[in-house]
Amino acid sequence: MSVVAQLTAALGGLVDTSDAALEEARADRSGHAAVGRPLAVVHARTVEHVQATLRIATATRTPVVVRGAGTGLAGAANAGEGEIVLSTRLMDAVIEVRPDDLLAVVQPGILNADLNRALAPHGVWWAPDPASREISTVGGNIATGAGGLLCAKYGVVRDAVLGVDLVLADGRLLHLGHRSVKGVTGLDLTSLVIGSEGVLGVIVGATLKLRRLVPGSPCTVTATFPDVRSAAAASAGVTAAGVQPAIMELMDAASLAAVHALLRLPAPSAGAAQLTIQTDGPAAAVEADAIAEVLRAHGGTTAVTHDPAEGERLLAIRRSMHAAMASLGTTLIEDVSVPRSAMPAMFDEIARIEQRYGMTIPTVAHAGDGNLHPNFIFEGTETPAVVWEAADELFRAAIALGGTLTGEHGIGTLKRRWLAAEIGDDQWELQRGIARVFDPLGILNPGKVFAPDA
Amino acid sequence: MSVVAQLTAALGGLVDTSDAALEEARADRSGHAAVGRPLAVVHARTVEHVQATLRIATATRTPVVVRGAGTGLAGAANAGEGEIVLSTRLMDAVIEVRPDDLLAVVQPGILNADLNRALAPHGVWWAPDPASREISTVGGNIATGAGGLLCAKYGVVRDAVLGVDLVLADGRLLHLGHRSVKGVTGLDLTSLVIGSEGVLGVIVGATLKLRRLVPGSPCTVTATFPDVRSAAAASAGVTAAGVQPAIMELMDAASLAAVHALLRLPAPSAGAAQLTIQTDGPAAAVEADAIAEVLRAHGGTTAVTHDPAEGERLLAIRRSMHAAMASLGTTLIEDVSVPRSAMPAMFDEIARIEQRYGMTIPTVAHAGDGNLHPNFIFEGTETPAVVWEAADELFRAAIALGGTLTGEHGIGTLKRRWLAAEIGDDQWELQRGIARVFDPLGILNPGKVFAPDA
Repeated sequence: MSVVAQLTAALGGLVDTSDAALEEARADRSGHAAVGRPLAVVHARTVEHVQATLRIATATRTPVVVRGAGTGLAGAANAGEGEIVLSTRLMDAVIEVRPDDLLAVVQPGILNADLNRALAPHGVWWAPDPASREISTVGGNIATGAGGLLCAKYGVVRDAVLGVDLVLADGRLLHLGHRSVKGVTGLDLTSLVIGSEGVLGVIVGATLKLRRLVPGSPCTVTATFPDVRSAAAASAGVTAAGVQPAIMELMDAASLAAVHALLRLPAPSAGAAQLTIQTDGPAAAVEADAIAEVLRAHGGTTAVTHDPAEGERLLAIRRSMHAAMASLGTTLIEDVSVPRSAMPAMFDEIARIEQRYGMTIPTVAHAGDGNLHPNFIFEGTETPAVVWEAADELFRAAIALGGTLTGEHGIGTLKRRWLAAEIGDDQWELQRGIARVFDPLGILNPGKVFAPDA
Repeated sequence: MSVVAQLTAALGGLVDTSDAALEEARADRSGHAAVGRPLAVVHARTVEHVQATLRIATATRTPVVVRGAGTGLAGAANAGEGEIVLSTRLMDAVIEVRPDDLLAVVQPGILNADLNRALAPHGVWWAPDPASREISTVGGNIATGAGGLLCAKYGVVRDAVLGVDLVLADGRLLHLGHRSVKGVTGLDLTSLVIGSEGVLGVIVGATLKLRRLVPGSPCTVTATFPDVRSAAAASAGVTAAGVQPAIMELMDAASLAAVHALLRLPAPSAGAAQLTIQTDGPAAAVEADAIAEVLRAHGGTTAVTHDPAEGERLLAIRRSMHAAMASLGTTLIEDVSVPRSAMPAMFDEIARIEQRYGMTIPTVAHAGDGNLHPNFIFEGTETPAVVWEAADELFRAAIALGGTLTGEHGIGTLKRRWLAAEIGDDQWELQRGIARVFDPLGILNPGKVFAPDA
């Protein structure tokens, strides 16, 4: 009996072999698509469905690609020829909310923003806020170790997960982590699963660490600078001054111009870069003023608003970045991260690479944590070799500055070529050896993260 | 050539075979000692010394026990017959402090409090503050995944380490983690090493995530309750009310009486339990008042002081707990942790176990994060079987309440018997399999954490 027939016999109508489903599962939001089409998409609704799928996959040695909402940016959830797609998108329940213990137990398929809408009436929230929060799942956020805009103040996913329920390649279910704040029983496998991009097991549940909703409304500071380097230096200056913004976003001239064009706003001055900063909590107003002062000392022209609606309007400019890039062509969104003090130097490197390759690389940055998203724009669906050459220089420059080639998007298929360049061959082998302990047959997301250069 | 002769040939005077050194290395602060004496203590001063020691250990298949200041409470660093002790205590330099990037690079042997004294002039601190901070090393804090008093507000070690330099059993050096705030290149081996208790490799350096010093001075609230259950309910009430103390320590009647006797303070009323709470930051005074109100609503008699010296004096009562217990006999300090809302139920369980075994179990708790330290007191050096029976009930009660058998001390030798009871046989095998990837010959801390029941 074929693999699909076995799946259908076990799972009936959950097994989807429609053209649309198979085609959709080939690609994520990176634009990159896998070669060929997967065998089937299993729309799991329960842990048992996940286990049944994996038992069949193990028995038949069939590769499995786990998928949530398909909003990844590194190709980690793209499924191709001969693979089973295991979707946990329909497992989207909130099982338990405990404001007194600041935790929630959820299924992996719930969207980040839907979770926070469900939590708000309880006076709590889950802090990780990737730009994709309206369309990405909590399971995907955990599998990629997602970051977001609020990370410098409120932490990344790694800081916000107490435990994970994981189904192994052979179908066994493990409960990792704790419901208590503290817990050190053996190795911290919860942390190991965070950011593991589908190569260790299937996340079927998570115990999340929550925060109280922040009281009051945020203040928003915008500052315009004559060039991106001074904007970057100013943002590093804010961190060095010891004020902690909730959000500190930087847009370079090309990004700003593209978004203004998309939103039909007046064009910004040539070369101008912008910082958009939000403070929150009881000291929001005081901190906004202190930050504005630092920015002016770095040559910025500042405006402060205490109106939350106006603040959202200003942030909407930053949030329109993906749409603005998409309007220009196919986009390869990069994701380097450096120590905050190295941000001006990283922008120098980007300028050097732009000049060397004769291209414009519109760049936005989560400036509060040194995470830059340079965008390469091109025609067609295949990333041209010259773009990869420029990206290669970008990655190596970030690593040389004490940074990393991916701050929050992950390795997936798109960056596996550079993984060993950052972590070294010894650590690469060690990491792959660990993955093999979880998945001895190598059926979970083969070709992702640890695949040798393809 | 014997192992000791090989070590001496390679490392000369760093190899210590004195009676005093060998005897000291047998035990930690748990009171438990290994059987027999180790071969030698190597006092490494450089990464190369660590690598040379491990190469000899690998070549000769000799077990290695890594040791810092020997202040552990689970027997993880106790060395016995035929083992090499590898001490990193003398590697105690602060390599780099970057207040602008909120990070420091340190060697593992520096004491926690010495590090914070070195950081203070830069306006920054490392938040993990185990009660042993004056005598325990940063490397040991990382190896055990230490907690402390400030964890509910400022996080545990897991939240405060960006990267670790690790020497593997065969002597290879790996650089794990990042200097940037964000970074998701492959598996998070930094987190895996945190709390790994010497079974994965030797920590020879760490990049620590720092915080700005908190401005202003703390406010301290003390509250006395007629019984421990109402104190526990009050502390859970504080968390549920959404106020975040920096410190919230609970002492039961037996603890309070023992410390008062040690410090020659007037005896507390019979059965009375106490909460000592500190708030800090700009809203310290407002929060202290809000907390005092919650405590009074739970039947507490409260006092608030804004005088930092008086606050330290009040906290000194809590900090004298270990000394007070030691004055009563040999102590087995336990370390269960439960969700905060389950603290009253956990104190009920302790009362039940006290009654069943006819013993008093003085208990203090980091009440802000649900971490309890019940103390078993006995005569002599061997933990009596009846104490282990009572501890067994304690562990199982904590696990049944959604908690864990160790919040911050680790498994070591003393709790390995219960590890599988908490994490399950499948996860136990998986964890041991991961350790074998790091250390295929099993020479790193054998008999610790994963050893089957001894």
